[in-house]
Amino acid sequence: MPPTEYGTYLVTQASLSAGRETTEIVRTAIDGGIDAVQLREKGTDARWRYDLGLEVRELTAEAGVDLLVNDRVDIAQAIDADGVHLGQSDLPVAVARDLLGPEAVLGCSASTVDEATQAEADGADYLGIGSIYGTTSKDVEADRASVGPERIAEISTAVSIPFVGIGGITAGNAGPVVEAGAAGVAVVSEITAAEDPRTATESLVSAVETAKGMGDTPPHDD
Amino acid sequence: MPPTEYGTYLVTQASLSAGRETTEIVRTAIDGGIDAVQLREKGTDARWRYDLGLEVRELTAEAGVDLLVNDRVDIAQAIDADGVHLGQSDLPVAVARDLLGPEAVLGCSASTVDEATQAEADGADYLGIGSIYGTTSKDVEADRASVGPERIAEISTAVSIPFVGIGGITAGNAGPVVEAGAAGVAVVSEITAAEDPRTATESLVSAVETAKGMGDTPPHDD
Repeated sequence: MPPTEYGTYLVTQASLSAGRETTEIVRTAIDGGIDAVQLREKGTDARWRYDLGLEVRELTAEAGVDLLVNDRVDIAQAIDADGVHLGQSDLPVAVARDLLGPEAVLGCSASTVDEATQAEADGADYLGIGSIYGTTSKDVEADRASVGPERIAEISTAVSIPFVGIGGITAGNAGPVVEAGAAGVAVVSEITAAEDPRTATESLVSAVETAKGMGDTPPHDD
Repeated sequence: MPPTEYGTYLVTQASLSAGRETTEIVRTAIDGGIDAVQLREKGTDARWRYDLGLEVRELTAEAGVDLLVNDRVDIAQAIDADGVHLGQSDLPVAVARDLLGPEAVLGCSASTVDEATQAEADGADYLGIGSIYGTTSKDVEADRASVGPERIAEISTAVSIPFVGIGGITAGNAGPVVEAGAAGVAVVSEITAAEDPRTATESLVSAVETAKGMGDTPPHDD
C-alpha cells in the first residue's frame, strides 16, 4: 500500500516486548488493525532477524499489511519485504534506493526540517518523524533528537511525502500528530509492552481514524 | 583473485587497533604484502562502515587486494566489494549467494567439519577456520568454538574449497596452519595492534610464503 495509508504502524523490538514473541505481537496487532510493521530488533544477529523476518513476512503478506525492515537492505531483500526503514546512521537513502530499485518502499527517520527535506530529495517515500513526545523505548530512540509536536507542521509544509510520528505516542495523544499532518503514528512499546496488545492496538487505530475524520482540510496542499 | 591466493588476510576492527585509523592500517598492510582485507568493524553503524568501506575499497582496488565485507551483503554491494564474509550467525550462505550472484566471493566462518561441508554445499568460495590458537580478539571471535590445529587437516580432507586459519595466529605459529592445508592465515590484532604493523605484516607474509615453499605435497588431492 502507499505509505499515505500507514495510519497505525508497529515497530517490533523483542527486547521491549515483556517477554512476548514478536510473531505473537505482530499477529495480535494485525488483528487489531495496523497497516504496517517495521522489523527493528536492534542488537540481534542477522540470522535471527532473517528467520523471524520470514515468519513476519508470511503473517503480513496474508493480511495485506506492509513490512519494512530497519537498517538492513539485504535482509529486506532476502525476506521479500515491501521496503526498508533507515535511520540517520544507516546506509544513505540514495544508496539504499540504488540497491532496492524504484518499487520498494523506502522510509527514513528525521527529526529536523533539513533531515526531512534531504531524505525526500534522496528518494525516500515516507518519513518517521520523532521523537514526538519523548519515549520510554530509549534503546530504540537514543539516536534521535527530541522533536516537539510543533515541528510536525513545519515538516509537513517542507516536504510532500507522507510521514508518521514516532516517540511516546499513545491513543491519548495520537490525535494532534495526525491533525498536524501525519499520515499516522508509529509505536513500539505502546503495543509490544501493553498489558493487552490487542486493545492497545484497537485504541490507537481508533484514535488515528477519529483524528483523520476530524480534519477539515487535507494536510498537504498537493 | 581466487581465494586460493589469500595467503595473508587482514580483518579490520577499529576497536582493536590501538587508536589507529583503519585506513592507515589497511594502507600499511597492503604495503606489507597482504592479499585480502575483510572489513569487519562489528558494533559500528552502517553509515560509518559504508563511509569507511568506500575509502578501503579505493585503497584495495588500487593495490589489487581483495575486499570482503563481514556480515552485510548490502554494504558489500554498496561499496562494490569483491565479496562478503559470513559468520554462523549471519545470513545463510545460500541466501547471500542469491543476493550477490555467482561472481562475488563468498566466505564463511566454520569451526567444525559439519559447518565446513555445509558452507561448501551452500555455495561458499572459501572458509575461515578458527579459532586456531585461541585469540586475544575476544569481541571478534567470541562466537567461535575453539579449534585445535589438528582439525585443520580433518577439514582439509572434508572440503575442496580453500580456507584460511584465524585466531591467535602470529608469524611464529602460522607455518603449521599452512602446512596442514590452509591457503593462508587471517589476523586481526596481530597486525592492527602491532607495535609496528608494517613489520608485523611482512613477518606474517614471509612465514606463510616459507610454509608454502616447504610443502612437499599439495594440500588437496583434487
